[in-house]
Amino acid sequence: MTELNRFPEQGVTDRAALDALLDSQLAGVLACIADGEPLAVPMLYARDGDRVLLHGSTGAGALRRVASGAPAVLTVFTLDALVVAPTTFESSVNYRSATIRGPLEPVEDQEAALDLFSDVLLPGRRAEVRPPNRKELAATLALSLPIREGSWLLKVADDWPATPAEADAEPDVWSGLVPLRTVLGAPLPAPWSADLPVPPSVRRLTD
Amino acid sequence: MTELNRFPEQGVTDRAALDALLDSQLAGVLACIADGEPLAVPMLYARDGDRVLLHGSTGAGALRRVASGAPAVLTVFTLDALVVAPTTFESSVNYRSATIRGPLEPVEDQEAALDLFSDVLLPGRRAEVRPPNRKELAATLALSLPIREGSWLLKVADDWPATPAEADAEPDVWSGLVPLRTVLGAPLPAPWSADLPVPPSVRRLTD
Repeated sequence: MTELNRFPEQGVTDRAALDALLDSQLAGVLACIADGEPLAVPMLYARDGDRVLLHGSTGAGALRRVASGAPAVLTVFTLDALVVAPTTFESSVNYRSATIRGPLEPVEDQEAALDLFSDVLLPGRRAEVRPPNRKELAATLALSLPIREGSWLLKVADDWPATPAEADAEPDVWSGLVPLRTVLGAPLPAPWSADLPVPPSVRRLTD
Repeated sequence: MTELNRFPEQGVTDRAALDALLDSQLAGVLACIADGEPLAVPMLYARDGDRVLLHGSTGAGALRRVASGAPAVLTVFTLDALVVAPTTFESSVNYRSATIRGPLEPVEDQEAALDLFSDVLLPGRRAEVRPPNRKELAATLALSLPIREGSWLLKVADDWPATPAEADAEPDVWSGLVPLRTVLGAPLPAPWSADLPVPPSVRRLTD
């Protein structure tokens, strides 16, 4: 990420690796240009085959800007480990980072898009609640970012630190990795739900 | 984040809350404009009082572009919980998101900047390894993004989901939060470090 690694960050052309990264995260940063300045907004997304869906309120500024086909790029990344090298200079992080370039496209079926978002955020939840109503659908703007050959770039740093010899360091300095991962905590019922059983969708998530 | 929350995301003007978010994360997305297109690159950062330091190789494209004072914005965010609402429409995430606008400024003391990065990535590590040498310092470009009044924006969504009445949902649908957090795993020694004791800096991190 800082391009200070022993091996420069690797560009990866494996589409399955891109999908694995996208499917492992929930949010990215959508960047566009607004009045000559870069505008960058974190957004939830959901991959749907060869496209990434973004959604928000129809009043959301950043989405409205890119809805008309303005240049845009979505960045998704995750840190996988601290890389503890035998020198501070060589110390860094292992990470995976993807950028997907727009333009974004309209989504015909807003209800299907909302359903997909629900399925990504919490699989199985749709069976437990009522479907979206007309008012909710009208208030939602879903856009699609196609994943096309040449429209995406994946970088992966996944390596041991530099050796002491490579880093010109003392031979007896410990080095290694400290893995990082995101975990889900125990569900917290809303005050008005305290007496209700935790539903299957939430139980499956945290079991 | 999707602006679908019961209460629209809250703009927060508390500088301590900004610092808490910045200090809880290691990386953000730096966005600038390159040849009329938005360019967005994940980067490690380190807060140093009223500035955020960024660093990378002197050959790194994105850093070079913003080194000369081009418009740039750093976005840092974290997801704090899944918000499981009584409808899919109201379901979302609790999150904190900061943007800090540039331009970036040169850093006089590159060695102090590198030291700070090390202290943020792994406190105490500097005492265990040799200091950076001249060649390493020459290969590093550190830049500073000042945190000034009006240059940053913090948004926080930290709330229970909509109530069933607010969401026009069945009253007996469970809703609540599922907290998300990042944890450190057990240190993995590099193959050539397997017989060395895990150093205090790494032990403190994961104890």
